[in-house]
Amino acid sequence: MSEASSRPEARAPRGFVDRRARDLAAERAILAKVSAVYERYGFEALDTGAMEYADALGKFLPDADRPNEGVFALQDDDEQWMALRYDLTAPLARFVAQNWETLPKPFRRYAFGPVWRNEKPGPGRFREFTQCDADTVGSARPEADAEIIAMASEGLFAAGLPAGAAILKINNRKLLNGLLATAGVESEGQKLAVLRAVDKLDRLGPDGVRLLLGEGRKDESGAFTKGAGLAAKAAEAVLAFTAAGVGGRSETLDRIADVIGGSPEGDEGLEELRRIDQALGGLGVGPDKAVFDPSVVRGLEYYTGAVFEAELLLSTTDEKGEPVRFGSVGGGGRYDDLVARFTGERTPATGFSFGVSRLASALRAAGRDLGGQARGPVVVIAFNQDDMAQYFGVVSELRAAGIPAEVYLGGSGMKAQMKYADRRLSPAAIMLGGDEIQAGTVTVKDLDLGRELSAGVTDNAAWRAERPGQQTIPRAELIPALRRILEA
Amino acid sequence: MSEASSRPEARAPRGFVDRRARDLAAERAILAKVSAVYERYGFEALDTGAMEYADALGKFLPDADRPNEGVFALQDDDEQWMALRYDLTAPLARFVAQNWETLPKPFRRYAFGPVWRNEKPGPGRFREFTQCDADTVGSARPEADAEIIAMASEGLFAAGLPAGAAILKINNRKLLNGLLATAGVESEGQKLAVLRAVDKLDRLGPDGVRLLLGEGRKDESGAFTKGAGLAAKAAEAVLAFTAAGVGGRSETLDRIADVIGGSPEGDEGLEELRRIDQALGGLGVGPDKAVFDPSVVRGLEYYTGAVFEAELLLSTTDEKGEPVRFGSVGGGGRYDDLVARFTGERTPATGFSFGVSRLASALRAAGRDLGGQARGPVVVIAFNQDDMAQYFGVVSELRAAGIPAEVYLGGSGMKAQMKYADRRLSPAAIMLGGDEIQAGTVTVKDLDLGRELSAGVTDNAAWRAERPGQQTIPRAELIPALRRILEA
Repeated sequence: MSEASSRPEARAPRGFVDRRARDLAAERAILAKVSAVYERYGFEALDTGAMEYADALGKFLPDADRPNEGVFALQDDDEQWMALRYDLTAPLARFVAQNWETLPKPFRRYAFGPVWRNEKPGPGRFREFTQCDADTVGSARPEADAEIIAMASEGLFAAGLPAGAAILKINNRKLLNGLLATAGVESEGQKLAVLRAVDKLDRLGPDGVRLLLGEGRKDESGAFTKGAGLAAKAAEAVLAFTAAGVGGRSETLDRIADVIGGSPEGDEGLEELRRIDQALGGLGVGPDKAVFDPSVVRGLEYYTGAVFEAELLLSTTDEKGEPVRFGSVGGGGRYDDLVARFTGERTPATGFSFGVSRLASALRAAGRDLGGQARGPVVVIAFNQDDMAQYFGVVSELRAAGIPAEVYLGGSGMKAQMKYADRRLSPAAIMLGGDEIQAGTVTVKDLDLGRELSAGVTDNAAWRAERPGQQTIPRAELIPALRRILEA
Repeated sequence: MSEASSRPEARAPRGFVDRRARDLAAERAILAKVSAVYERYGFEALDTGAMEYADALGKFLPDADRPNEGVFALQDDDEQWMALRYDLTAPLARFVAQNWETLPKPFRRYAFGPVWRNEKPGPGRFREFTQCDADTVGSARPEADAEIIAMASEGLFAAGLPAGAAILKINNRKLLNGLLATAGVESEGQKLAVLRAVDKLDRLGPDGVRLLLGEGRKDESGAFTKGAGLAAKAAEAVLAFTAAGVGGRSETLDRIADVIGGSPEGDEGLEELRRIDQALGGLGVGPDKAVFDPSVVRGLEYYTGAVFEAELLLSTTDEKGEPVRFGSVGGGGRYDDLVARFTGERTPATGFSFGVSRLASALRAAGRDLGGQARGPVVVIAFNQDDMAQYFGVVSELRAAGIPAEVYLGGSGMKAQMKYADRRLSPAAIMLGGDEIQAGTVTVKDLDLGRELSAGVTDNAAWRAERPGQQTIPRAELIPALRRILEA
């Protein structure tokens, strides 16, 4: 093997991405804003490790000798299977079960960090991404759901979404369960088929969903999807139910009451939504921010009551320039059985989770990028090795004044140094040649202005009069001169 | 199998820890302060993924069909081995090699995040922990080392270390190499044996190290450690060299010059330290913050020039109450060969890394815990389901005023609710019974005071006069009353 071919290729694993300053600044700003909101709501921070035992994640297939392939799993030296967490809820359930005796109850925590899915990566689909979750464990009250909903909404707007750009849509699994019980549907399989059909309303419309609720549907390609097998009357009841989400929250509740008509589970679901409505009222969350929408499904089977989805009402364009609705940025609901996996005791819980990069993209599309311009440091040009201490004196002065600055430390000449400063998006370059040091002066070149001029943003004549592109000034005036450039 | 025994046990994998609010707040505060310093120095944030291909990490043993056991590795579905990163330097080298053409050069980046080591966990030894790194890639100038040193020092103090509590100790591998070359030592094995011997100076003193530099040393248990095999004169030269770190930086340089005497590599190392000294002068870093110390070794074989170590001059007590010096909190140096693993081209680089939890422990020991008291939210007691919207109105008001607050949402009575508030370290509980709602008043119970009284911190008589433990006040006076409690 030759030396060259024994060198590894420099590449990140498939589905893992490197993130540069600008993206990171945006995500960090989102997490700081959202964390502040969550803490004001009395939620405490928690961080669990990246790895969990695979049995604690519930990721063993029956009768298999290794975990489900959807997770990144490996065997520890004592033969136990561990896996990278695929969400933040499963580790929370493990943590709560482990520490139940000593935790304040209800236990309210928020968390953010990477999660990993061992799935096929694709455009916009990564195998590592950042989630941000908040959950209340140990409260069966619908008011706990309402708080999560109110907090999710406040968090999204605090992160920078413009007014009206997001809405929380709320439903309750018990309503549909009640409706189906009234229609005589008992099997879990049939219920899931109904949920899956309803979940396609957006894409197929009521006529397509009607077919999927009944015998089945043939698509344009001729492929047949078997339906849920409901009788026509039951299918119409489900469609009427999903269409009840019109008007204010109390109108929707009245309409739902008319449709689902009186099963015990349905009534329970209705009462829960009524209490959520009242609590949202007390929390000042109007129908412009949170509505009831019986067409909301949420895929996960573990939800047991209220479910909610945060929908962005923004549009953006895809790679081909076509307009695309952003759609869901997060969701959650009530799951009362996750802790019971460990303890055998049902423990009521409710939570909300959103994708941080997804929200960052939405903010960017809305022109609300909190990452700022990722402006680079002021660069001091290095002319002469003997004057290095002088250059470092200048950058120390600037840094002490809060202005990011550096001395160019590569080995190239003046032209390459200017190119470097430009590539860093530096606002200014500082030149301190022998003559300037002698005279106690410094030369400042306004690089922001250079970029504006070449982009045609700034008028050349105005510039000459008011904003010199390059100026030699007394050293003592350096910081005020840089502030003028930074604030221009 | 019974149902109970089929339940997984709720436990985190060995060596992985859950971190609660207080620890997290301290670590986040450190990272925010340090990031701000690093950005002022012109370093940009970068985040690479948790996984790298094992060949890119350099973690294949020769002739082995799976990676080194020190990393957590697994095989991707295309059979390639991936592993969780064990530090932040190897992923940086991969990133730089992959993006060299488009990066500004020198490339200055900082990064923080978890790293993973598949080692035996123990007290204070985890398999997952957070590192924070800064590196300059593409500058061979000693001034780049000086900047990293100055920045590391400024970062540690910005994080909250008291003045005088940390010192950067600097050495250069070339000095010892030059010394050994003069003494006729050529083999890498013998050089490493010398480095290992010098690294034990703290523990064994000069006499013990003299034995290890020569034929070898028998310890108290009678076990024999083979020595480096230096002749007596060469061993004395090494000891004189390691003892040269006394006085100011230029005195140390003069003393080193006397000892190592004139090999080309030694002279190169001396010249580099001279330039580091000058740049540190320009950056305002005096000998109280950074010194030359020829006894600093740094274990990693990949260092090629300057090496540095951040030593904490704080003491703390161990589990048995014995005083312990904190010692090293981080270190780094120049490594010019890591990128070449991928590209075949030598790429000069220098960096510094510190352990975030370790610094947090040191700050705690110094009474400078930036995490604050992890104070809980104000808790509104839930008396009556019908008044829930009232309670939520109160917490909304408090949150809008920036005061963390929540309604108790469990199912327990008054006494348990007070206990909950106490467990959350709530500053106050708010009671809003039917009478109070009627009268437009609210009752506030000062829980901070209750804790102070039971801890004997506050005088009972003074309390009665000036700080009522419980007071019923007009609703409009709630926020001022809470601020008095929060600021007390």
